[in-house]
Amino acid sequence: MKLLIVNPNTSSAMTEGIGRAAQAVAAPGTRIVATQPSFGPLSIEGHFDETIAAAGVAEQVRLHAGPDVVDAPSGIVIACFGDPGLDAAREAATAPVLGIAEAAFHAASFLATGFSVVTTMTRTCVIAEHLVQKYGFEHRCRGVHGTDIPVLALEDGGAGCVDAIEAAAREALARDRSGAIVLGCAGMAALCATLSARLGVPVIDGVAAAVKFAEALAALGLQTGKQGDYARPLPKVYTGWAAPLGW
Amino acid sequence: MKLLIVNPNTSSAMTEGIGRAAQAVAAPGTRIVATQPSFGPLSIEGHFDETIAAAGVAEQVRLHAGPDVVDAPSGIVIACFGDPGLDAAREAATAPVLGIAEAAFHAASFLATGFSVVTTMTRTCVIAEHLVQKYGFEHRCRGVHGTDIPVLALEDGGAGCVDAIEAAAREALARDRSGAIVLGCAGMAALCATLSARLGVPVIDGVAAAVKFAEALAALGLQTGKQGDYARPLPKVYTGWAAPLGW
Amino acid sequence: MKLLIVNPNTSSAMTEGIGRAAQAVAAPGTRIVATQPSFGPLSIEGHFDETIAAAGVAEQVRLHAGPDVVDAPSGIVIACFGDPGLDAAREAATAPVLGIAEAAFHAASFLATGFSVVTTMTRTCVIAEHLVQKYGFEHRCRGVHGTDIPVLALEDGGAGCVDAIEAAAREALARDRSGAIVLGCAGMAALCATLSARLGVPVIDGVAAAVKFAEALAALGLQTGKQGDYARPLPKVYTGWAAPLGW
Amino acid sequence: MKLLIVNPNTSSAMTEGIGRAAQAVAAPGTRIVATQPSFGPLSIEGHFDETIAAAGVAEQVRLHAGPDVVDAPSGIVIACFGDPGLDAAREAATAPVLGIAEAAFHAASFLATGFSVVTTMTRTCVIAEHLVQKYGFEHRCRGVHGTDIPVLALEDGGAGCVDAIEAAAREALARDRSGAIVLGCAGMAALCATLSARLGVPVIDGVAAAVKFAEALAALGLQTGKQGDYARPLPKVYTGWAAPLGW
Amino acid sequence: MKLLIVNPNTSSAMTEGIGRAAQAVAAPGTRIVATQPSFGPLSIEGHFDETIAAAGVAEQVRLHAGPDVVDAPSGIVIACFGDPGLDAAREAATAPVLGIAEAAFHAASFLATGFSVVTTMTRTCVIAEHLVQKYGFEHRCRGVHGTDIPVLALEDGGAGCVDAIEAAAREALARDRSGAIVLGCAGMAALCATLSARLGVPVIDGVAAAVKFAEALAALGLQTGKQGDYARPLPKVYTGWAAPLGW
Amino acid sequence: MKLLIVNPNTSSAMTEGIGRAAQAVAAPGTRIVATQPSFGPLSIEGHFDETIAAAGVAEQVRLHAGPDVVDAPSGIVIACFGDPGLDAAREAATAPVLGIAEAAFHAASFLATGFSVVTTMTRTCVIAEHLVQKYGFEHRCRGVHGTDIPVLALEDGGAGCVDAIEAAAREALARDRSGAIVLGCAGMAALCATLSARLGVPVIDGVAAAVKFAEALAALGLQTGKQGDYARPLPKVYTGWAAPLGW
Repeated sequence: MKLLIVNPNTSSAMTEGIGRAAQAVAAPGTRIVATQPSFGPLSIEGHFDETIAAAGVAEQVRLHAGPDVVDAPSGIVIACFGDPGLDAAREAATAPVLGIAEAAFHAASFLATGFSVVTTMTRTCVIAEHLVQKYGFEHRCRGVHGTDIPVLALEDGGAGCVDAIEAAAREALARDRSGAIVLGCAGMAALCATLSARLGVPVIDGVAAAVKFAEALAALGLQTGKQGDYARPLPKVYTGWAAPLGW
Repeated sequence: MKLLIVNPNTSSAMTEGIGRAAQAVAAPGTRIVATQPSFGPLSIEGHFDETIAAAGVAEQVRLHAGPDVVDAPSGIVIACFGDPGLDAAREAATAPVLGIAEAAFHAASFLATGFSVVTTMTRTCVIAEHLVQKYGFEHRCRGVHGTDIPVLALEDGGAGCVDAIEAAAREALARDRSGAIVLGCAGMAALCATLSARLGVPVIDGVAAAVKFAEALAALGLQTGKQGDYARPLPKVYTGWAAPLGW
Repeated sequence: MKLLIVNPNTSSAMTEGIGRAAQAVAAPGTRIVATQPSFGPLSIEGHFDETIAAAGVAEQVRLHAGPDVVDAPSGIVIACFGDPGLDAAREAATAPVLGIAEAAFHAASFLATGFSVVTTMTRTCVIAEHLVQKYGFEHRCRGVHGTDIPVLALEDGGAGCVDAIEAAAREALARDRSGAIVLGCAGMAALCATLSARLGVPVIDGVAAAVKFAEALAALGLQTGKQGDYARPLPKVYTGWAAPLGW
Repeated sequence: MKLLIVNPNTSSAMTEGIGRAAQAVAAPGTRIVATQPSFGPLSIEGHFDETIAAAGVAEQVRLHAGPDVVDAPSGIVIACFGDPGLDAAREAATAPVLGIAEAAFHAASFLATGFSVVTTMTRTCVIAEHLVQKYGFEHRCRGVHGTDIPVLALEDGGAGCVDAIEAAAREALARDRSGAIVLGCAGMAALCATLSARLGVPVIDGVAAAVKFAEALAALGLQTGKQGDYARPLPKVYTGWAAPLGW
Repeated sequence: MKLLIVNPNTSSAMTEGIGRAAQAVAAPGTRIVATQPSFGPLSIEGHFDETIAAAGVAEQVRLHAGPDVVDAPSGIVIACFGDPGLDAAREAATAPVLGIAEAAFHAASFLATGFSVVTTMTRTCVIAEHLVQKYGFEHRCRGVHGTDIPVLALEDGGAGCVDAIEAAAREALARDRSGAIVLGCAGMAALCATLSARLGVPVIDGVAAAVKFAEALAALGLQTGKQGDYARPLPKVYTGWAAPLGW
Repeated sequence: MKLLIVNPNTSSAMTEGIGRAAQAVAAPGTRIVATQPSFGPLSIEGHFDETIAAAGVAEQVRLHAGPDVVDAPSGIVIACFGDPGLDAAREAATAPVLGIAEAAFHAASFLATGFSVVTTMTRTCVIAEHLVQKYGFEHRCRGVHGTDIPVLALEDGGAGCVDAIEAAAREALARDRSGAIVLGCAGMAALCATLSARLGVPVIDGVAAAVKFAEALAALGLQTGKQGDYARPLPKVYTGWAAPLGW
């Protein structure tokens, strides 16, 4: 089975890191293909970054999983916690598409009556909160907490990052009366095991959760529903750099 | 990996059927153990049946996955669409526990912006609706529809059952503007492939979804959060038939 | 008029205490019959306890208020703050059935725009919160607060208990901007008058509220609606210890 | 015990009728005093009528249950389905105050998982819907249905009225999958028994429900919470016709 | 264009002040007519005050914008943060009617993902919270905060008032993670510019917002919808002081 | 005052049409500048189209209203009913930014207790429904109805289009019990007056509403809140075609 992992930002190092993290949790027969947009921000830390990145996700899914693609993936993961471009990707593909925020929220709901999110920049908390509202997790998600660690600092982030995230998680668990922690950034994947061991509660990395759930859906032969609003896009002319993305 | 499938009713035929359905979708290395309570109703078609069955689920999880059990399962599935005893099971076990209604709702949410549930007795629709509300799927679930097929009729239910469910599903898809169908009874598992082929939309059987999601969580080493309200039950004397269930 | 008070746990001392508390507030012509399940936990302090106790409530209502019972009660009260077995009891009986959490929430809503709940173990707060959500009191209930007093300690709980509950209530009133306190455990009934005097706000004991509301409904000749999901259970074989509960 | 029933409109015939209906369901020791504003509309069939009537309710509660009143009532009922002036009345009085819409919604919630409201003018449905939202009954109330019978036609309304309401109720029960009917106008009180007999489901008249719930709260010594927003109004000069209502 | 500004309380000084504030922000061609009820409280600081004031608003709109009025206004503003009498005014008038709380909430939603309200008496916070719930701003409004400055103290309130409100606003912005402040009292209009300059975030005065939005709607020729529940009131006799308000 | 109107699709004819419609309702001193992205779909009829178009909106706002722009606009309108790129535009600009769906919903809420949306393709209804949920209009918006008129057919759409939309609006008003109609596509602006005259209820065109509300906010000196999540984007490298959009 082939899974496409789309890193919505344009940091090649992060694309590779996410690809490795995905392969590490994938089943023996699963082949991970990690990709990134041909344009856009090096990291995603706000609405503007995310809007450009969402178009980048749409581009990549169009190119790797559109109707005319040979050897299309059996599942697709969008590896940024804002789930940019999720609806567009589902419209463009037939394989199931999962966002990592979504996957993490679902996983946490199976393990605790309430969970807390620990993320990077405080200014992005509202993005996670909007997803919580949109997806229906308002009773499960008891808090979204920023640590103000820049996304790119996570890459070489040693003990300092882990300690800061651990501290934020401990405070969140106590204040929110939560039973699980969701890591609010794809770049935190590598810290998941350490944090889980330190905190003694389930710590959920959305990349891992999305990969396993995508495998699960694909194994059951389930695909994106093509009746209704996720139907194939209508035939349409696109202009400018987006011309090749037309339908 | 061992998965425990608890059929909350006391129909051995249904327990076996659910076990077979679970094994059919399980990964090569997964061993399914199907069980049923030592007491309770032959089928679950209302609140009273379900309340007794929930105690039966608690009994079975206590016996097969309690703290003193050797070779405890890596994941547990409660195979009745009302998810009876789900919170009790999570408190009693450390392995992740999934209800099939819950798993089906989550799976459908990955595949369509809106889904409809087709279930058995109309009088049980409110049970599904309460779960939809409790779990936060009120925007995703656009309708719960009864067919008034008795649960036990599904076992030997030939073409008549399939046709009736297909008709209800078609009406639901149109009226609810839905993109996927959730089957509202563990006894419908065998009909899933046929219905999916006929309807042309994703049709989700909760047993299959729960088995795959349980495998996914277990593969990641995720367990039920033991901090907070899913902590191990407090030491306590139980009396009467329930004496062996004390903590 | 006869009212059946079901204590869902198996502490005879608590059953007697609740019965006395109920009789103390009942109208002159009301006769209280207090009962408890033939099995189950001595106290209810978590999901597992509650799931077994719910089956005990179903058993008692079946035996004391089922269709073949002579001199069935005119109203039924479930005297544990999690309202275990409420839907099952309503299905089994024709008399109105009230849970004490439900009754207390309703009473508080008549007296204040916002109320706070003070309960026993913190780990049970989520049970009350789920009821708040299910019943629709999310705007009225401004907080649920644990005191970590074990349920059985309330029985012989002298000044220490009252002081601890008073302190928690004072903090809740201030922090939640609430105008009334709901006592989150049937075992707190005896403390209601003292707390009310000390706090200067309405303090609501669910047992008392449920008894009076049950009398009110019964006096109007109102009964549980037998059309729809509270209709009499369908004929069904039950097995094991539950065999006598079949329909 | 004395209960004050405030008819918010200025139809003396309706005030007397409501008073009789209230006395008919009151306990032996309860004395009903029915009153109406000194000004305002003859019936309430829209927002403007209701806003003037709410001031009339405030006037009557101020005069009959204000702080300087001798022999103040032990409970107060506002007998119009829009619950006009409810918050003002609670601020002015110390006795518990109940609106009949509120009381009926609470009563119905004890008897069915879902209920429907049948009311008079279709244009007033939104008033009931706003109350449903404000009080938190959005999951319980499955529909509000107008019959376009004018309020005053109910007084001499013979078989025609009953038949029209019965028909609307039957359609509501089926379409809403409801288990109980709430009568959406104080003027329908006299039809409650007939409708209940014909429909075979609980039919709730808010006047009766409010009287019994007020008796229940009063018997427990419960009063409106005077801490927070229902505290006694601040000292204040009122001018014009309202001068005597100042504090 | 003529705009009618109704000050719901009976303080002539405040009516004049609000009129001046409205004129100051009005377009060159807009003529402001400020009025106040012929009766009622000098200021509005609770439910009782507000209920009487709502009738006063209804009176003024009936007299200045009813069906038989020559030179009726093109837009109407209700200048008290509880929006008293809003639905009645819309029923009575054809011009668009805006409450200042409503207008401020809408304006803030255009400028920030979350806003906080800073108001006068803490006991009135619940009035604003009810409006937030009724209007659907529960995700946007992150907190309502009282300063316990009496409404009438705002009139001659010098630096002390501004400082107290600024302090409350700063705390609200930090605690609620908000991006804008809504002033919760018409009497705060004069402080808006100062607070905006000091706080560095948008500070919204509802009077100004309502005036500009009313101008906007009127310029588009939009009027209150007269189909449905805002239709002209039904013909009806009113009695007592309200006799001239009948329809 | 200069207002920037961004047409998110790349149809120049539609950009001109929207610009004319905006200028037609603008105040005398307002200058409308209409623009469109340098890339993307000719019309927006699904999630994929919209995601690419959102990036186009971000591009245009960055270029016309970014921090280094001389003569930046005083207000910005996004003229597609899905409000694509709204949060990104608010982050990029300091002037207030309004989406036309948002503006139309707000306008309708001032004029009726409930409104219905009539839009183009049925498959886009879910986009409007998600906005309704995100913005908090779930109680006001009583239905979203597709006509399956393609967006580009509206341009030369004569009587046929108007008749189809009128028919859909009439059915919506009756079925939803609504008092106003919101036109769910910028391309319907030219039909607004005709439909309003025919239907006899307020018909709201989002372009007009957004222009007037933007003028209103700008006249008050209100700007997007730059504290919190709408703060200026963090400095960041963008790559590919998006390189000039970096911060």
